[in-house]
Amino acid sequence: MTIFKIKPRGHDMYSWASDLYPICRSITGQGVRKTLSYIKELIPDITIHEVPSGKKVFDWTVPEEWFIYDAWIEDDNGKKIVDFKNNNLHLVGYSIPIDATLSLEKLQNHLYSLPDQPNAIPYVTSYYKKDWGFCLSHNQRESLKNGNYKVHINSELKKGFLNYGEVYIKGRSKKEVFLSTYICHPSMANNELSGPVVTTALVQWLKASLDLNYSYRIVFIPETIGSITYLSKNYKKLKSNVIAGYDLAYSYMPSRDGNTMSDKAALHCLTHLAKDFKQYSWLDRGSDERQYCAPGIDMPIASIMRTKYGEYPEYHTSLDNMSFISPDGLNGALNIISHAIGCIENNLFPKALILGEPQLGKRGLYPDTSIKGSAKDTDIMMNILTYADGKRDLIDISNILGVPLWEVKKIVDLLQENKLISV
Amino acid sequence: MTIFKIKPRGHDMYSWASDLYPICRSITGQGVRKTLSYIKELIPDITIHEVPSGKKVFDWTVPEEWFIYDAWIEDDNGKKIVDFKNNNLHLVGYSIPIDATLSLEKLQNHLYSLPDQPNAIPYVTSYYKKDWGFCLSHNQRESLKNGNYKVHINSELKKGFLNYGEVYIKGRSKKEVFLSTYICHPSMANNELSGPVVTTALVQWLKASLDLNYSYRIVFIPETIGSITYLSKNYKKLKSNVIAGYDLAYSYMPSRDGNTMSDKAALHCLTHLAKDFKQYSWLDRGSDERQYCAPGIDMPIASIMRTKYGEYPEYHTSLDNMSFISPDGLNGALNIISHAIGCIENNLFPKALILGEPQLGKRGLYPDTSIKGSAKDTDIMMNILTYADGKRDLIDISNILGVPLWEVKKIVDLLQENKLISV
Amino acid sequence: MTIFKIKPRGHDMYSWASDLYPICRSITGQGVRKTLSYIKELIPDITIHEVPSGKKVFDWTVPEEWFIYDAWIEDDNGKKIVDFKNNNLHLVGYSIPIDATLSLEKLQNHLYSLPDQPNAIPYVTSYYKKDWGFCLSHNQRESLKNGNYKVHINSELKKGFLNYGEVYIKGRSKKEVFLSTYICHPSMANNELSGPVVTTALVQWLKASLDLNYSYRIVFIPETIGSITYLSKNYKKLKSNVIAGYDLAYSYMPSRDGNTMSDKAALHCLTHLAKDFKQYSWLDRGSDERQYCAPGIDMPIASIMRTKYGEYPEYHTSLDNMSFISPDGLNGALNIISHAIGCIENNLFPKALILGEPQLGKRGLYPDTSIKGSAKDTDIMMNILTYADGKRDLIDISNILGVPLWEVKKIVDLLQENKLISV
Repeated sequence: MTIFKIKPRGHDMYSWASDLYPICRSITGQGVRKTLSYIKELIPDITIHEVPSGKKVFDWTVPEEWFIYDAWIEDDNGKKIVDFKNNNLHLVGYSIPIDATLSLEKLQNHLYSLPDQPNAIPYVTSYYKKDWGFCLSHNQRESLKNGNYKVHINSELKKGFLNYGEVYIKGRSKKEVFLSTYICHPSMANNELSGPVVTTALVQWLKASLDLNYSYRIVFIPETIGSITYLSKNYKKLKSNVIAGYDLAYSYMPSRDGNTMSDKAALHCLTHLAKDFKQYSWLDRGSDERQYCAPGIDMPIASIMRTKYGEYPEYHTSLDNMSFISPDGLNGALNIISHAIGCIENNLFPKALILGEPQLGKRGLYPDTSIKGSAKDTDIMMNILTYADGKRDLIDISNILGVPLWEVKKIVDLLQENKLISV
Repeated sequence: MTIFKIKPRGHDMYSWASDLYPICRSITGQGVRKTLSYIKELIPDITIHEVPSGKKVFDWTVPEEWFIYDAWIEDDNGKKIVDFKNNNLHLVGYSIPIDATLSLEKLQNHLYSLPDQPNAIPYVTSYYKKDWGFCLSHNQRESLKNGNYKVHINSELKKGFLNYGEVYIKGRSKKEVFLSTYICHPSMANNELSGPVVTTALVQWLKASLDLNYSYRIVFIPETIGSITYLSKNYKKLKSNVIAGYDLAYSYMPSRDGNTMSDKAALHCLTHLAKDFKQYSWLDRGSDERQYCAPGIDMPIASIMRTKYGEYPEYHTSLDNMSFISPDGLNGALNIISHAIGCIENNLFPKALILGEPQLGKRGLYPDTSIKGSAKDTDIMMNILTYADGKRDLIDISNILGVPLWEVKKIVDLLQENKLISV
Repeated sequence: MTIFKIKPRGHDMYSWASDLYPICRSITGQGVRKTLSYIKELIPDITIHEVPSGKKVFDWTVPEEWFIYDAWIEDDNGKKIVDFKNNNLHLVGYSIPIDATLSLEKLQNHLYSLPDQPNAIPYVTSYYKKDWGFCLSHNQRESLKNGNYKVHINSELKKGFLNYGEVYIKGRSKKEVFLSTYICHPSMANNELSGPVVTTALVQWLKASLDLNYSYRIVFIPETIGSITYLSKNYKKLKSNVIAGYDLAYSYMPSRDGNTMSDKAALHCLTHLAKDFKQYSWLDRGSDERQYCAPGIDMPIASIMRTKYGEYPEYHTSLDNMSFISPDGLNGALNIISHAIGCIENNLFPKALILGEPQLGKRGLYPDTSIKGSAKDTDIMMNILTYADGKRDLIDISNILGVPLWEVKKIVDLLQENKLISV
């Protein structure tokens, strides 16, 4: 695959995100299934897997499935002051059912808000401890008057399934590039939906590609328990086949090793395409790269993505909404990832076929008349030839030259056509 | 041994130093033996070795023993203007006997003073060339009037012994940590007595410790000829058993290799406990680390210690007296060394026992409810787990985390109790 | 060979350069042969090789030989406005014969000048495309009036030879140091003649030397096609014998590897003898180091030389004339190269013969009386001994000490005489 540049899909991706935004996702339940069904319309051959509650996965157990039908708080006057129907962030994820009347004082133990961001509803979950709660803006919380409040949560926790989607795209080699994105957050745009929609556009692009060197395996999974479940079933196969890959989550987060081909390709593309990107360290990790790079798993997976780089206050609040992402931003992310994949696909080890410097002139590859300064255009070609010792890959050579791999590749092709290098 | 912190012993150590201060030590003789006897009262099972004069030790020969009884200079009026009884630095170490009357001009050839430090008596020795001399302040020297002076040195150089003390403390492993300090300087406090008194307190602490992982070998020796003598008898055994150690002399001086466990532990402790310490290079070496790290000996010995860091003008003069050290300073040194030993004792290679990230929550090690920012307290635990690949030792992991090993060790213990890591 | 310092030969070298300056050299032809004959008078046992036109050499073919007899442009008034006899840079190298009258407009296609350096005649060649042309100052070109111009080039391109000179100097080892310089530029002083004249003085010095550790092979060749021709005949032998070497061309240009003994010796000498030298990277290469370090050839050859360091505007123009070089500058270059060769000749791996620190005092190598500060003079000796582990070479040890190798070598000799180290 010599294509790096991808067709802009910003408006499609933004429209998919808009459709998926209202769905109340969690690590299990209808929200995940609805999301996967929507993606299946865009990627018909995605396989949707289900793993039953109670299944042991490494150190964890697949939890009961969470069904949520309704949830609200009513004040003394019978007015619904907090309603899950208005914003699914109002409810603590995995809340158990309740139907009770409480004083404000007692209710406070089950309320969550952010004093520093008084307009934002925080995103809160309690997956593994049976509890319930409501989230609201700090402004609203401060305005609550003493009195009794009726709380109602119509939810169920019962045996069910954890679901995830998996796509496999066959390339020439059975060696795989692995991509992972998560689908377990309720209505949040940047830290959730930008992941699956960019991944979906990427998968469509990969499937349309006629000549992939590597095979591709892409998973759409709930964070943490999803990747642990997936790894517990597949890690031996993955460890032996995966040569590179990305968790489509962070700006750029190195793999634990820090110097895999995934890291090199991501850094190369970000350096040339997003010059002011923030570079994290492994100590900043926080998503599924924790699982993919865990000791004993050790996959060469780095993290890459997000239209916004760096930390942002809207993270994990209701302010991370559809106005926080944009078609242009999604395109930017898609473009960087497609280039990173292009770098991996084209990361050859060029080797000179001729001893000494080849005579480029007789092949029309060198200016005929030598005058001071005239040779500038052939510098890149000469530099590729001098480093074509079969030991350096194209990312390393491009980095030495300070030239993007997609420019270097064009000249590598020319040298290959002229039988000056093998790859 | 999981204890790093040592009970403050500043006043004991200062009192020992005060007792030892007046003794006229040299590389052989009564001063060394008196000093070792004093230490034997504090460490009853110290073995005091003797090696006869004339014994070949590597390239050197154990010198004759120096006995000094009296030494003074008298002026024309019969007034003793310089008297060894007032300050044992007045006499050049290893001075041969003399009884003569000299003009001031001739006497000058045997006088030593420091023009830049006119109040200080310098410390001068002539171990291997038979000579005699007196040291005095430059102010006093400038005030000497022309005339004749009577010089008297009642000393003997004769066959005798070189003495040193050796303590062995058995731990679970026969692998040893080696500690060395010197006892050959006359009345100087910082650059001499702080070494043996801190080492003595450390030995008492090690002997009281119930569960040492490593065995400990500690020597109290005359500098240079003492360590050469000791090595010539023991270096094969030491090379095969010693895994780390310190010459208790300098602030921090790396071993010749520069990256042994001794170096790593010393740097880690100084970084966390003495942030403005001066870091020397091997080119600055000057004490017995020269012998322990000599080509062919190659022991993993760094230097560490001294209450005062950096170069100081009082070094090797009468100004390095008991007011130059303090109980607090001695405690500081003791504390750093006990922590360095604690780091060596506890420098494990943690290895995760569970594939993927363990579920800390079900063990009560993780907050139940996930809200933005709430996980800070568990960051260290997660970081230990992610680096617990069996290849990194605890000093390296602590350095990556920027957290002292003694903090990290507590969490390692907790993870071990929960069967999440082996060490 | 323990001699580093070379007798100044500035005036000899400058005088040779003055003799060689008027000769019209190119990659083949009479100019090269005249130059080699001149050198043979200075180095009688140089072997002058000839390789016939048409001979395949790696990817190249030895070109036809170029004979040039006369060349000029005449204006309407029959006035010779450009004449090869005045300056051989006026003619494009390898111009084919022509005899024609052209309008100024048509003539412009065959004229070369430098708008940024309006007084300089540029140096232009067209070795591999059959063409002709004249070079002139931009000022003169701007002053040309419309009208017809008569151009006359009396040249021949016909089967002949490519010539180069080779000197071999036998040392104790058959391992070789390889030196290369080029002799293919017409009248330019710095970027041509400084190379062969310094090399000639160096060869005379090497031949007069009685005790060379290594053998020396020195070639005087046309650039690019000359080194390719030479390598195609000899590279297998060179690859197995050459342990270090220099292309006498650039200030300092690393070998492709960047860390060969040639690189280390050059950097060491430039650091101590030419503190403000410009350090190039392999990406700046431009001369025969391209051939010597090509993938598959991989000789340990760095570039070194030139009286002027850094880029200079006079490069490849008529301004690079005899006033641009000087006896002092040539001496400076000769001195650096002789020191670099001295470093290679003397680059031993010292190994201590005595366990522990030797007693220098009994050998008269240490001050007898120890007083604060008195040991400074023996620091270098002690440092050599402590690093004499048989694993570090003398360049590395000298660099650690920050002392020139030629100073360190004197003390190494002293330690060797005293049987304290073997080398």
